[in-house]
Amino acid sequence: MKNFLSVHDATTIPDLVNRARHYKASRNENRELADGKTLINLFFNPSLRTRLSTERAGYELGFQVITMDAGGGWKLEFEDGAVMNLDSAEHVKEAAGVLSQYCDVLAVRSFPGLEDRTADYEDRIINAFVKYATVPVVSLESAIRHPLQSLADCVTIAEHRQTDRPKVVLTWAPHPRKLPQAVANSFAEWMVKWDEVDLTIANPEGFDLATEFTAGARVLHNQEEAMRGADFVYAKNWSSYTDYGATAQLPDWTVSEQKMALTNDAFFMHCLPVRRNVVVTDGVLDSDRSLVLRQADNRTWAAAAVLAGLLGG
Amino acid sequence: MKNFLSVHDATTIPDLVNRARHYKASRNENRELADGKTLINLFFNPSLRTRLSTERAGYELGFQVITMDAGGGWKLEFEDGAVMNLDSAEHVKEAAGVLSQYCDVLAVRSFPGLEDRTADYEDRIINAFVKYATVPVVSLESAIRHPLQSLADCVTIAEHRQTDRPKVVLTWAPHPRKLPQAVANSFAEWMVKWDEVDLTIANPEGFDLATEFTAGARVLHNQEEAMRGADFVYAKNWSSYTDYGATAQLPDWTVSEQKMALTNDAFFMHCLPVRRNVVVTDGVLDSDRSLVLRQADNRTWAAAAVLAGLLGG
Amino acid sequence: MKNFLSVHDATTIPDLVNRARHYKASRNENRELADGKTLINLFFNPSLRTRLSTERAGYELGFQVITMDAGGGWKLEFEDGAVMNLDSAEHVKEAAGVLSQYCDVLAVRSFPGLEDRTADYEDRIINAFVKYATVPVVSLESAIRHPLQSLADCVTIAEHRQTDRPKVVLTWAPHPRKLPQAVANSFAEWMVKWDEVDLTIANPEGFDLATEFTAGARVLHNQEEAMRGADFVYAKNWSSYTDYGATAQLPDWTVSEQKMALTNDAFFMHCLPVRRNVVVTDGVLDSDRSLVLRQADNRTWAAAAVLAGLLGG
Repeated sequence: MKNFLSVHDATTIPDLVNRARHYKASRNENRELADGKTLINLFFNPSLRTRLSTERAGYELGFQVITMDAGGGWKLEFEDGAVMNLDSAEHVKEAAGVLSQYCDVLAVRSFPGLEDRTADYEDRIINAFVKYATVPVVSLESAIRHPLQSLADCVTIAEHRQTDRPKVVLTWAPHPRKLPQAVANSFAEWMVKWDEVDLTIANPEGFDLATEFTAGARVLHNQEEAMRGADFVYAKNWSSYTDYGATAQLPDWTVSEQKMALTNDAFFMHCLPVRRNVVVTDGVLDSDRSLVLRQADNRTWAAAAVLAGLLGG
Repeated sequence: MKNFLSVHDATTIPDLVNRARHYKASRNENRELADGKTLINLFFNPSLRTRLSTERAGYELGFQVITMDAGGGWKLEFEDGAVMNLDSAEHVKEAAGVLSQYCDVLAVRSFPGLEDRTADYEDRIINAFVKYATVPVVSLESAIRHPLQSLADCVTIAEHRQTDRPKVVLTWAPHPRKLPQAVANSFAEWMVKWDEVDLTIANPEGFDLATEFTAGARVLHNQEEAMRGADFVYAKNWSSYTDYGATAQLPDWTVSEQKMALTNDAFFMHCLPVRRNVVVTDGVLDSDRSLVLRQADNRTWAAAAVLAGLLGG
Repeated sequence: MKNFLSVHDATTIPDLVNRARHYKASRNENRELADGKTLINLFFNPSLRTRLSTERAGYELGFQVITMDAGGGWKLEFEDGAVMNLDSAEHVKEAAGVLSQYCDVLAVRSFPGLEDRTADYEDRIINAFVKYATVPVVSLESAIRHPLQSLADCVTIAEHRQTDRPKVVLTWAPHPRKLPQAVANSFAEWMVKWDEVDLTIANPEGFDLATEFTAGARVLHNQEEAMRGADFVYAKNWSSYTDYGATAQLPDWTVSEQKMALTNDAFFMHCLPVRRNVVVTDGVLDSDRSLVLRQADNRTWAAAAVLAGLLGG
């Protein structure tokens, strides 16, 4: 792998899943791999799970890990030829070039503005770093994708599936805030490409994701119909792609025990943080079918697999 | 020790003091102890001494140390059954559960609001982490206690006492801001339990600490009377417990050379940061009887003793 | 070296340049040097390059590295005898004394206010830390100097010079903001002392630097005249020293391809971040004569040389 920005960079999904499970099973035995190497995690937006799991993964492989919060004062310029006499203090050409001097792998998190779809879907920050960095770049969630989350989700499904090709349902769920489509886009993209699962997406009318991520999946606008017979139910809110950034308060879409009763005793998944009793009821989240903490744990091992892959390990 | 939240978690005070002195005397020789283990320090409030000394202690034992400032954006929900459609983005159940996946010891700092005594004295943040974490939890100061400071204070007293059962005086002192009772509560609690010292507390009327911390100590409202014959004078401001959060400007209570002359050539102690010429005069603080830097140094070794104890070391 | 605050602390410039090149050539082979030692980087102002390069240098030598942002809430008192009943929560006496307990080397960044020249040129923050710290202090840029940048610049010149005593031109360049004189002061001071280069300074009338830094250099107010025959052109904006903090919008001073054509095929240097097409044109910055990324890389090795020197290595 040269960079890790989406499922298209994965060697193969089964290969990455196996590597992640390998590192999980051999904790503390892989610190020679990145000995003397440095990982920089650059956050344009705050993060808890992603920061901690990536740091842990870095340490597992023996990296020196440096985490930078760049959200505050560091205004970057992205335009070629810009006359920089306004707010931007540094061009991404220099920023990426300089950071590349100080590390062996550069991991970057950024978020969309959710105002201008064209701008967001160009995924400008991560792509500019890829263009100008001279070391491998890892997405720690970009404007439109969250590939390390998706890989961790694949690992979690691989660990828990009881059939050859389980039915996986990605369902939209309510949320009080306007959220990116990144987690949902990425999950759809990975599930569609992974031939070991069968993906159904359920969302209200007006909340269809971009077809570049969902082509190949069944998309239904009826949550109950979608959930029938599911082996895994993955809940997530996202704001509208078509009416860009629009939200809807639809309490009928909360994932509840009643809805889970329609499934094949499905496991429940969510990337966290989760709004209890809005996205999903306490009953579901606190049940022994909930995999949310397993997913969070697997973030570490997904990151380890990717970091090792980028070093050629 | 399972967790470290108060003196009640200490194996015994002499045991912890001895362990701290052991680590201090064997700097750089204990890095095998926590090799491959991770310490997360989670700060809901800012910190200098506590952060640095705990990080140093972690490194001394071989931990990978991750420090998170959670003060800004990360709003946690603490109520069971809450419908999370307002500000709180994550329930402490998930927060503590997730953090437990990424570390072997979780250290947490939080402060009281000093508005609602009942709420503060429930010590909600640290207790919620203890309830939901699956790894040992260390208090880096909670709403009502600061046990690592108290242990460092015990170590400092043990290093400097010249009699079998020295007279220790905890005295209230003036301060321009409204401060928690945590340091004073904890110091009282440790001194009362530690049978190697004799504790007197001096504070103005209206500033008595909660008896759950002070029962067993002599409480006087006359500072000079209290200081007579003291071997150690520990100054600290705290806001009122009884008239909760109230403060008082009482310059007569500043610890001065004149007052120290009443003592048995006492050592002066303070947890820092200290307001010079408000809490204590320059003359006292700059004298060779001042132990404030020794206390700060011992924070590292107190933390090392506790972290090692939590690993069973 | 006892501390590292200016060129006056350098053993000799050639010695430090050689040490820096030695560490650069032996990456990952020097981690025994500071094994078991701790470096604290304390930032009163934000930083990207300085933070990352100093952390990298610390890791290269085997330090445990702790980075503290002190810009926000930590108000220090610097006056002797102050009655601290206002904003300042801690006196630098305690702050420096405490930090010295937690590390083997203390690195400090601070900026000038650019309002009161006398106060800024006393370089109060870094000097107070030097006065009260009990460990070596390194300047990560102070109000009036940036010695690690200057050392990195020396290394970069040493690597690229093609004549025995190249002509180096430090030229003022436009910038939309009011900037410190620190980089320019320091660069002048190092170049003047370094007998292997010949320094010319070009700046508009009213922008002469303080003579304590420039005495011994040629100072011209005509940029084109200065650049003629140059082997290295170092561009940097600074606000006025004489009309303290004043700025000027002088687009004629932008470094362009036309101006570089007057030189002896000079290398272009800048400490970054750089405002493209304000300080310097894209054409110059993107040419193969631009050394700006080399300078950024050499920051790491300059810091390694200094840190090792402070340990006696």
